[in-house]
Amino acid sequence: MSLLVVGSVAYDSVRTPEGSRDRALGGSAMYFSVAASCLTEVSLVGIVGDDFERTHVHMLEARGVDVSGLEYAEGKTFHWSGVYSTEDVNQRETLDTQLNVFEEFNPTLNPRQRDSDFVFLANIDPALQLRVLEQMKRRPRLVALDSMNFWIDGRRDDLDRIVRGVDLFFLDEGEARSYAGEFNIVRAARRIQDMGPRAVVVKRGEHGVLVFDDDDIFSAPAFPLDSVVDPTGAGDSFAGGFMGLLAATGDTSRAGIRRAAIVGSVMGSFAVQDFSADRLTSITPSDIQDRFDNFVRLTQFDGDGLKIESGFLPVSLRARSANN
Amino acid sequence: MSLLVVGSVAYDSVRTPEGSRDRALGGSAMYFSVAASCLTEVSLVGIVGDDFERTHVHMLEARGVDVSGLEYAEGKTFHWSGVYSTEDVNQRETLDTQLNVFEEFNPTLNPRQRDSDFVFLANIDPALQLRVLEQMKRRPRLVALDSMNFWIDGRRDDLDRIVRGVDLFFLDEGEARSYAGEFNIVRAARRIQDMGPRAVVVKRGEHGVLVFDDDDIFSAPAFPLDSVVDPTGAGDSFAGGFMGLLAATGDTSRAGIRRAAIVGSVMGSFAVQDFSADRLTSITPSDIQDRFDNFVRLTQFDGDGLKIESGFLPVSLRARSANN
Repeated sequence: MSLLVVGSVAYDSVRTPEGSRDRALGGSAMYFSVAASCLTEVSLVGIVGDDFERTHVHMLEARGVDVSGLEYAEGKTFHWSGVYSTEDVNQRETLDTQLNVFEEFNPTLNPRQRDSDFVFLANIDPALQLRVLEQMKRRPRLVALDSMNFWIDGRRDDLDRIVRGVDLFFLDEGEARSYAGEFNIVRAARRIQDMGPRAVVVKRGEHGVLVFDDDDIFSAPAFPLDSVVDPTGAGDSFAGGFMGLLAATGDTSRAGIRRAAIVGSVMGSFAVQDFSADRLTSITPSDIQDRFDNFVRLTQFDGDGLKIESGFLPVSLRARSANN
Repeated sequence: MSLLVVGSVAYDSVRTPEGSRDRALGGSAMYFSVAASCLTEVSLVGIVGDDFERTHVHMLEARGVDVSGLEYAEGKTFHWSGVYSTEDVNQRETLDTQLNVFEEFNPTLNPRQRDSDFVFLANIDPALQLRVLEQMKRRPRLVALDSMNFWIDGRRDDLDRIVRGVDLFFLDEGEARSYAGEFNIVRAARRIQDMGPRAVVVKRGEHGVLVFDDDDIFSAPAFPLDSVVDPTGAGDSFAGGFMGLLAATGDTSRAGIRRAAIVGSVMGSFAVQDFSADRLTSITPSDIQDRFDNFVRLTQFDGDGLKIESGFLPVSLRARSANN
């Protein structure tokens, strides 16, 4: 089934404890597309400047990404520059953000894109996200949303409007707390679900994700890596794997959502193993399958093995149990 | 099999966003014993003052806890007082610590305790932990250790000595990083395992635990609760469930350790649902079984469902796959 992503394509200058990169290919829609393209075809809507390199377009095309919606504008491509803490690679500081051509981004969908089954609205101005949905010919099968504190704090009304119209909301733990105005993460997720979305996917970085899908809760760990080279794009790669699997299989049941969360975690774990999308662009289907199998090993335990009433309790408790 | 715990028994004055309690029963050995006693018999070695209430001894005795090793000394019981942040219930501030009779604690094991199969050295001075091990008649089947930053920073040599002699080391994420001098948690755990312990159990509060058991890694989530009343004692209750199951079943295989981590998480999740050990003392075996089953539901996904090479990849990737 068709998959559409609308978001940023950027150049990032990044310093992490493992090294640094200048003008590395980045942006939410780029990470999403590269991850999703491991699983299905994806159509990208974004904007770049006249400094955008042909090799980067070719890379996307070679992965089967439909880049006909990648608009070229006069000026420079969105540029972000940041540094990750040497003490805590989960902490980062933005040194500079140059929106450049991204400032004039006004996503326009072609007829085929307006007919997409699955839509991912990456982290951009919620007013633009609304405009994307308005262009759809029909209600897509599933619309997923990402956002950030900047919009939660500054564009609350627009954000509320778009949240009411989506099926899935991906946001990180702090954003979920802030948006819901509630510290407890279960209550925060429930409050956001009450606004409309069927599912809230709470991203917790190296602690994995919690998926609140109707009244179902699923916990997926992050893959324990002994080396994290560059955390940039982990969340968008997660979303790309997640939505890519949904679109590839068409299975949006609870079981399908759970499996998508694991495949998302697989893609997120690859994303952080190198700068930019370098690791993602080199993985093979068997790499994905292997890591998926590793997630099975990471989480499985003998769920039938506990028979708590079958005899090893002390007499006092056994008596108490019998009385209940 | 026999289970011994050596640690503190205390009175805690606690304020959390959900309320407050004055002189509530607390202490690492108390939480551990109450949790473990849901699964097996446990023998407690600790010290209390002449203000220690008979009802608290009776509660432990009624649960089958062997309190013959609970020493009564002249003076007051260890008293801790703290407040949990209203913004983040995971953050706490210690207002006051009065060691009182705990200052003279010199754990002495009786002959039966010296013959214990499973031993949990709760968070006390590592010099005392060493003295406990020296009293054992034979190497116990499994010795587990807990500690804290205070000893990591201030008693490093003694701590290193005891770490070399134990099988399991329970410590929280920050402590693991600090003790190993390594931010990456996989490398930190490996470094600690290299000192001696077969397994390092990294506790991450509401994000669950990571168990590094030889070269095996297991991730267990925390149970998502919509109300956390009092986080005090969660880690010791986790350890009590963990060790209690090992002692009850005698199964210290990898599968046994994984299952113990889940049962530990079950007990930790009950502990925080009320002040002191109030929830733990009211649960029945079927409550434990139910929550264990909920952990199964929380984590399960269709691990056989992904056949990444079976056809839904875009042509370009399928070709790439075939070349590998």
